[in-house]
Amino acid sequence: MEEVVLNFGSTAWMLVSASLVLLMTPGLALFYGGMSRGKSVLNMMMMSFGALAVVGVIYVLWGWSMSYGESVGGIVGNPFDQFGLAGTIYDEAGEFALDGFGVPLIVGVGFQATFAIITVALISGAIADRVKFSTWMVFAGIWATLCYFPMAHMVWALPAGLLSIDGPLATAIGTNPIDFAGGTVVHINAGMAGLVLALVVGKRKGFGKEPMKPNSLPLVMLGAALLWFGWFGFNGGSAFEANGLAGLAWVNTTVATCAAVLGWLVAEKIRNGKATSLGAASGVVAGLVAITPAAGALSPVTSIILGAIAGAACALAVSLKYKLGFDDSLDVVGVHLVAGLIGTVAIGFLATDTGLFFGGGAGQLVVQVIIALVAVVFTGIVTTVIALALKATMGWRIPEEDEVTGIDQTVHAERAYEGIAS
Amino acid sequence: MEEVVLNFGSTAWMLVSASLVLLMTPGLALFYGGMSRGKSVLNMMMMSFGALAVVGVIYVLWGWSMSYGESVGGIVGNPFDQFGLAGTIYDEAGEFALDGFGVPLIVGVGFQATFAIITVALISGAIADRVKFSTWMVFAGIWATLCYFPMAHMVWALPAGLLSIDGPLATAIGTNPIDFAGGTVVHINAGMAGLVLALVVGKRKGFGKEPMKPNSLPLVMLGAALLWFGWFGFNGGSAFEANGLAGLAWVNTTVATCAAVLGWLVAEKIRNGKATSLGAASGVVAGLVAITPAAGALSPVTSIILGAIAGAACALAVSLKYKLGFDDSLDVVGVHLVAGLIGTVAIGFLATDTGLFFGGGAGQLVVQVIIALVAVVFTGIVTTVIALALKATMGWRIPEEDEVTGIDQTVHAERAYEGIAS
Amino acid sequence: MEEVVLNFGSTAWMLVSASLVLLMTPGLALFYGGMSRGKSVLNMMMMSFGALAVVGVIYVLWGWSMSYGESVGGIVGNPFDQFGLAGTIYDEAGEFALDGFGVPLIVGVGFQATFAIITVALISGAIADRVKFSTWMVFAGIWATLCYFPMAHMVWALPAGLLSIDGPLATAIGTNPIDFAGGTVVHINAGMAGLVLALVVGKRKGFGKEPMKPNSLPLVMLGAALLWFGWFGFNGGSAFEANGLAGLAWVNTTVATCAAVLGWLVAEKIRNGKATSLGAASGVVAGLVAITPAAGALSPVTSIILGAIAGAACALAVSLKYKLGFDDSLDVVGVHLVAGLIGTVAIGFLATDTGLFFGGGAGQLVVQVIIALVAVVFTGIVTTVIALALKATMGWRIPEEDEVTGIDQTVHAERAYEGIAS
Repeated sequence: MEEVVLNFGSTAWMLVSASLVLLMTPGLALFYGGMSRGKSVLNMMMMSFGALAVVGVIYVLWGWSMSYGESVGGIVGNPFDQFGLAGTIYDEAGEFALDGFGVPLIVGVGFQATFAIITVALISGAIADRVKFSTWMVFAGIWATLCYFPMAHMVWALPAGLLSIDGPLATAIGTNPIDFAGGTVVHINAGMAGLVLALVVGKRKGFGKEPMKPNSLPLVMLGAALLWFGWFGFNGGSAFEANGLAGLAWVNTTVATCAAVLGWLVAEKIRNGKATSLGAASGVVAGLVAITPAAGALSPVTSIILGAIAGAACALAVSLKYKLGFDDSLDVVGVHLVAGLIGTVAIGFLATDTGLFFGGGAGQLVVQVIIALVAVVFTGIVTTVIALALKATMGWRIPEEDEVTGIDQTVHAERAYEGIAS
Repeated sequence: MEEVVLNFGSTAWMLVSASLVLLMTPGLALFYGGMSRGKSVLNMMMMSFGALAVVGVIYVLWGWSMSYGESVGGIVGNPFDQFGLAGTIYDEAGEFALDGFGVPLIVGVGFQATFAIITVALISGAIADRVKFSTWMVFAGIWATLCYFPMAHMVWALPAGLLSIDGPLATAIGTNPIDFAGGTVVHINAGMAGLVLALVVGKRKGFGKEPMKPNSLPLVMLGAALLWFGWFGFNGGSAFEANGLAGLAWVNTTVATCAAVLGWLVAEKIRNGKATSLGAASGVVAGLVAITPAAGALSPVTSIILGAIAGAACALAVSLKYKLGFDDSLDVVGVHLVAGLIGTVAIGFLATDTGLFFGGGAGQLVVQVIIALVAVVFTGIVTTVIALALKATMGWRIPEEDEVTGIDQTVHAERAYEGIAS
Repeated sequence: MEEVVLNFGSTAWMLVSASLVLLMTPGLALFYGGMSRGKSVLNMMMMSFGALAVVGVIYVLWGWSMSYGESVGGIVGNPFDQFGLAGTIYDEAGEFALDGFGVPLIVGVGFQATFAIITVALISGAIADRVKFSTWMVFAGIWATLCYFPMAHMVWALPAGLLSIDGPLATAIGTNPIDFAGGTVVHINAGMAGLVLALVVGKRKGFGKEPMKPNSLPLVMLGAALLWFGWFGFNGGSAFEANGLAGLAWVNTTVATCAAVLGWLVAEKIRNGKATSLGAASGVVAGLVAITPAAGALSPVTSIILGAIAGAACALAVSLKYKLGFDDSLDVVGVHLVAGLIGTVAIGFLATDTGLFFGGGAGQLVVQVIIALVAVVFTGIVTTVIALALKATMGWRIPEEDEVTGIDQTVHAERAYEGIAS
């Protein structure tokens, strides 16, 4: 067996990718913060920063080990296997251990940690303006542990993970599932958790009755831009090398997102007569989410098709919450769950080699539907248990009068803007 | 012939560079958005995001092929040659095709797409607050197709392009033109198009009579910062390798920009008695534009000189619009056209090897003036035709009362800020 | 001796790192700008942009040479040795000269320039809202020259620098000091200079009597995020290679910062009953500062401990200024000096190989205390001389009525926001 040596170029790319994905969480804080009302901007941003702080710490303590450590039944890694990264960083000679691409494992730890962080932060948009900060912080740690790390293990711990490439499901069906950068682990996971929390936590006072307009759309657009920028690390870095596949993922990510913006703007122009900046920013995210599992499996042209569909579909999906009556405040369900499902399943039709439309038969489609459903069911059950347990103990809601006054002032003793109008 | 193999390090750098340049367009949205009045922030930002969406999609469909496909007379590539990137991505063995530096071509596609996008977006600053969003979106697609892709082909398709290195002009004159990262293709091109549009579209109501102050100078400075950050990919990536030339371009870009800030601040301090933050932010952009064509051809010390001159000159040039009476709202002409011309021509004097001041004779200067003039004339004519055709069909202006009320509200049904003062 | 060849991968990483660190200065402008009152946002941002412009230019003129040129007594490099980068960029064969890691020296020049820039900019937070812009610009140039370049030489010019690895101090004591990315050169240096300036310049009118609240906490959080993002280049790039050490520095930087946020929030929750967003953002910076010297010497788990301590300690330290009566307006002393000292000294206890807690004896601790003290004393004296000289000549303060009206309006003839409330 050829010995793997340090690949400086791929290491550079993975260091950058990790940095880019970490930036996504503050980007999300701005995206969500801008969409909030003026009286709850800071709380919204703090939910992202808080998730970042909690999950960052626990990732190196037991998150890496639960994601990639010794498998327990294909469902989760043993948290004590590499607790605190024991045995992870260095090889037996005391040198930095390398993965199969010649990239130090410690770089991979950083890269994977950023995925766990952003996934938890994404959920917060579903429960804006109304929950106790302490409960959120505790939820972040428990949910990452019981829901994210197992999902990451099932999909990405090769080949032990139940849903992984060459894993038990793939062997049973004879077709490898495709989830390039996290359609199931990140977006279906976060979107489904958001739906559960929105239902358990309940609606904001005045939801559906009074307008709750974004306090700063420039912040929303800035946040969307930083998310896009960071997503190049998310999708491009998921090639794990600085190679052509990373380039293809980069281009597919860009064109799918461009097409999704057009799809969203056209859909809302037809329905409401106006193309909005909130629509453009949301279209950015919808496109990015949809292409996430598919970025390595499609061509640029089919990526455009996927993006356009996802953009238009999400533009319609975000109004469902008013009809169905759940207060998914900042559209975690309508964007992440919907576009995550579209992207994951669309691979079954559009994959260049194995998609139904390209002569690949139904095998890919079947396996994509299965992994999507498993993610929905697993997350749905685990999140419900966690959410109800917290409801019964710490409680989720701040007092109604504090919500009306504004959570920034009542929970954080701050106001987002002071004297700007002067 | 030695076979080219994948260069992981240069691929990493080009992936990063593409990501950085993509970020420039949202950076521009903030820069322009901050400079707009409070009632037209979102429209301004939407013009950048809209250009990004349109040009991103068409670039992979026919933009790459028109830029680098089979040459039609040295003026433009055949759009059907590599339509939809057919034949671009993979080599005959089905592997990712590499360029001469060992970087996958698909990475180059992404990098080049970002240049087309930002160039179109730049133009929008000349016609702020007053044009139909639909007309702008159509213009973006047509102008990229008829003006940007041909200019990119003429300058960068080696050696077929008329103005390219080793191309017909260079052969005829005996000296290669120097346009390291796009003084002609990007900045003269966008600046000239901005001038034409400002003239065809006409002035905003109240232009030159009432003050039109930037709604948020922190946004302007943030935008300038993101432009600078992204410009490291723009100029540094134009070395196409992670090498010393990229490093030289990086340092030259930084010091020219620093000097331009000082040049602008001193010029306005002398003229108006105050050094402003708008001046600092504009100086950043003026320096970045001027060094763009020259970043690989100058030394750090001559880059400082170029930057200082460009900063001071643009500080004076931006007031021309009031004297000449064209409403180049956010100074696309005064910054991009002027600094683009200064940078392109200054190479004739300052180039380390071939500049007039360094014993290189007049050849470099002559060829630099020629490519600058060709860009001015070509873009001037093509843009005029497009602009007038759109004026006669879709129309450019929104109704005057909508402009007075504010384009954000009348066209996009949104307001940038809600309840921030509360 | 093996000939060093161009390492594309490490060059890519160092180009990126330089870009990331440059972005930190605008990030700081936002962090500080958001913390200012609405009437002095722009001046605060201009102090960062101004420092960037001045120090960027002088770095290539004499800064590099004074940092890494021929040593004068181990204290400073000869400014004329490589003035204007003469003899720096190319080797004798006319090729780009490489450092020992195969990275072009010109890339290193860019990387090091960004450190000088951010260090100067950091100081400005101590004297917000009240100083002449011209005096600040002159101070920036003089302080970089007389204080920063010597400190950089003493610590980083190997082995000539007094405090450097294998330098005179290390030889005398028998233990190498550890300052991975600039605990002494950057943070103790800037923090101590901030303390001196706050004392020499004096308090803002109303300090300690009227509330001076941050005008925009979302800007503060955005600034903190960009600082964090840029810090990956600061710490990760200080490995000078794209390798496992860079990866370890990346992970340590992230987890220390996460822990510092938690440390700060818990400390203020206990003391004031509320966890604030200003605390989260400040905790980010405290963690980043503390891990800066230690990023390569600790394990991820000990980095968590260091971060938590630094976060909690700085949360308490920032209120000292009210008790001691110096107006360190934006907590340069409370964060950079305090966390810089904590990080530098903590290495003596926590370093994986040589720390007191890990069986390494007291040698490391002693040398860490010495370099910290030398930095404090050197900077204290030099900055005092510069500050008093400027006080006696140009003067530091703007007229009191201008300070009350607002420095943005009186010095820069601008207001940060116009018509945002409309």
